[in-house]
Amino acid sequence: MAMFDKPILVFQTDFTYKEGAVSSMYGVVKTVDRELEIFDGTHEIPKFDTWSASYRLMQSLPFWPEGTIYVSVVDPGVGTARRACVARTANGYYVVTPDNGTLTHIRREFGILEVREIDERVNRLASTRGVAIFHGRDLFGYTAARLASGIIDYEGVGPAYPVDEIVMHPVLDPVVEEGHVQGIFEIDDPNFGNLWTNIPLEDFLRAGFSYGDRIHTTIRSDGKTLFDRKVLFHQSFGFARDGEPVLYNNELMKVAMAVSRGSLEQEFGFGFGAEWVIEFCKD
Amino acid sequence: MAMFDKPILVFQTDFTYKEGAVSSMYGVVKTVDRELEIFDGTHEIPKFDTWSASYRLMQSLPFWPEGTIYVSVVDPGVGTARRACVARTANGYYVVTPDNGTLTHIRREFGILEVREIDERVNRLASTRGVAIFHGRDLFGYTAARLASGIIDYEGVGPAYPVDEIVMHPVLDPVVEEGHVQGIFEIDDPNFGNLWTNIPLEDFLRAGFSYGDRIHTTIRSDGKTLFDRKVLFHQSFGFARDGEPVLYNNELMKVAMAVSRGSLEQEFGFGFGAEWVIEFCKD
Amino acid sequence: MAMFDKPILVFQTDFTYKEGAVSSMYGVVKTVDRELEIFDGTHEIPKFDTWSASYRLMQSLPFWPEGTIYVSVVDPGVGTARRACVARTANGYYVVTPDNGTLTHIRREFGILEVREIDERVNRLASTRGVAIFHGRDLFGYTAARLASGIIDYEGVGPAYPVDEIVMHPVLDPVVEEGHVQGIFEIDDPNFGNLWTNIPLEDFLRAGFSYGDRIHTTIRSDGKTLFDRKVLFHQSFGFARDGEPVLYNNELMKVAMAVSRGSLEQEFGFGFGAEWVIEFCKD
Repeated sequence: MAMFDKPILVFQTDFTYKEGAVSSMYGVVKTVDRELEIFDGTHEIPKFDTWSASYRLMQSLPFWPEGTIYVSVVDPGVGTARRACVARTANGYYVVTPDNGTLTHIRREFGILEVREIDERVNRLASTRGVAIFHGRDLFGYTAARLASGIIDYEGVGPAYPVDEIVMHPVLDPVVEEGHVQGIFEIDDPNFGNLWTNIPLEDFLRAGFSYGDRIHTTIRSDGKTLFDRKVLFHQSFGFARDGEPVLYNNELMKVAMAVSRGSLEQEFGFGFGAEWVIEFCKD
Repeated sequence: MAMFDKPILVFQTDFTYKEGAVSSMYGVVKTVDRELEIFDGTHEIPKFDTWSASYRLMQSLPFWPEGTIYVSVVDPGVGTARRACVARTANGYYVVTPDNGTLTHIRREFGILEVREIDERVNRLASTRGVAIFHGRDLFGYTAARLASGIIDYEGVGPAYPVDEIVMHPVLDPVVEEGHVQGIFEIDDPNFGNLWTNIPLEDFLRAGFSYGDRIHTTIRSDGKTLFDRKVLFHQSFGFARDGEPVLYNNELMKVAMAVSRGSLEQEFGFGFGAEWVIEFCKD
Repeated sequence: MAMFDKPILVFQTDFTYKEGAVSSMYGVVKTVDRELEIFDGTHEIPKFDTWSASYRLMQSLPFWPEGTIYVSVVDPGVGTARRACVARTANGYYVVTPDNGTLTHIRREFGILEVREIDERVNRLASTRGVAIFHGRDLFGYTAARLASGIIDYEGVGPAYPVDEIVMHPVLDPVVEEGHVQGIFEIDDPNFGNLWTNIPLEDFLRAGFSYGDRIHTTIRSDGKTLFDRKVLFHQSFGFARDGEPVLYNNELMKVAMAVSRGSLEQEFGFGFGAEWVIEFCKD
């Protein structure tokens, strides 16, 4: 195969770039096949946070060329019985990951056609036999490289298992009615301190809200009301005054909340997860 | 065009690498043209800080091969009326950026020959229509990729507008006399805690200062004197004793100040900007 | 030479990615030869810490393809008399670095066949003459690029000097007896807060310890006992209960210690270095 016929590899982990782990992992890929292209997805997923890993995959995967192999290594159970797998998505990508909840959003949003358990007897870096704790380097990166280079095909990964056995995080769906929408803060933008809901813009508009509205917004955490006021809804936080909370349409076409040129997370102490309920009313 | 006839893309943003934004942006580039080479400039420009974005461009751009396309996305006004543009510099580069002050140093130091406003009707990722807040992915990265791949030429970016309309930050010039020089701390090295003045080494030497001198140095912030003592001036901080303040010639041939193996910023509480005046006297 | 006949360049520094330094350094490489491939090793070595630089090199180098050129720039003595060198290792790599202790682990673990001092008259970026403080850009990166591209061969780096003159950090060897092993915490995994000893798994097993054992473990710092209890030893921290200390076999086949899903460094306040002694007894 010519260089550009081989899929790109994109890696996301919770390793950070502070020490030599990412370098070792990428070195293995280039040792398998010098021609492979490698990109950093992110190496700053919060430690052990398979929920964030799942969300970040959904966020970025579809912007890469079809066929791209995304390797996700957030792996608190490394070395134990959890499955190591490669999933084939309905929109044409491969995801190499421990099967520990990381496939949740991908499966719901794009669909998974097939999943295979990595056969360690074949697809494991032989020189590190005896090491049980660095599957990013020894198993996931190595297998992804072999798949991308054509040394193995998808069947060569290992035996298929039922897609229904994929480990899934519980996910809440938003409630949408005329003049009333309820959802959760599903994830954050940790740099800007914005929070992203699970409410599609489409549903929000269908419920009767429009750009320019000031919308009655209630935020509860574990049932306790922490915020209850009218908030401007617009295309961009740039339309709000500096320091003012604002609702906007985020990069994934979902409703999000920010403080214009500030940090909603820091200034209000809000977080994300199933206990962070946000509600919008016409009144 | 062959792969290496296409210009390199270098990206700098204030996104950080903590979540999926950089990955999505780079994925778009590779989807436009698989052969394009992408490099991280930095993704850790301080949030909303178009001054730092402007300085970092000047600092790194000229070390890349001529023709390189630098994409800078520090964009507090995203989604509002600020212009999105591509500038062509007199030293042979392209800069893709919101026109919000980011071109200040490039224009002063190297000159800008021409600037064009990006025509969103042509040069915008169609699949994300409706998203107003991620021009890095949907407009700047996408346009840069199309320009680099030859899908559009420079005229294809959009209509030219007068270079004099480019948004500029006010910049102070240093004062240079025999035996006396005054300038400002213009930027920092945030890792080592060094501070860089806007005073060219050439001017400093012309004023009569030499390596090995101990120079009377005064630092004022908002008119208040915070530092007033003699400081060693040398080629490198390595010539000073550990923990001692030192003046040296920085990587851009300007006068800078450090604490040898320490942090001037942390140990003295100094910052940068027009209010941070530094003065050198022979006496 | 064809693109993939040219060695890969991997860079590790203490620069961080916060400003334009890495970008400038990589720009110089691509200006020397557009075809060269560049990877980040890490840019987050602790400031001035040549010990960590030395360890990280050993950790990652051997996973890259033979012939790879690793550039390490942790350089507190930049601009002073310390040597700038390129070492050729017995396992087939080149390391470009200040000779300041950074070669310690590489030399002990893999061996160094030859070392040459970089001749600044030939192998220095001419356009930055006068700058003494950025050898990463002006000397190390530039020389590595010239070597990788074939502009110079290894002899072209500069004159050889005796391998015995390489600056070495003092290193302690572990003590291994039947039923008793003593070593030090040699380095950390700064993200997960694990600590890695200098004790090879092989020696540990030879002393009579086995996976599944609960081993009497004593940790002393500067002679003071800070920890004295039985700890589970297993293939992976995944075998311990969350929050429990655990001994395991790390990615370099050495004995390491962690808190499962926690941070040993943060929760116990342990560090690394010659003063951090760890002792294991059968009793």
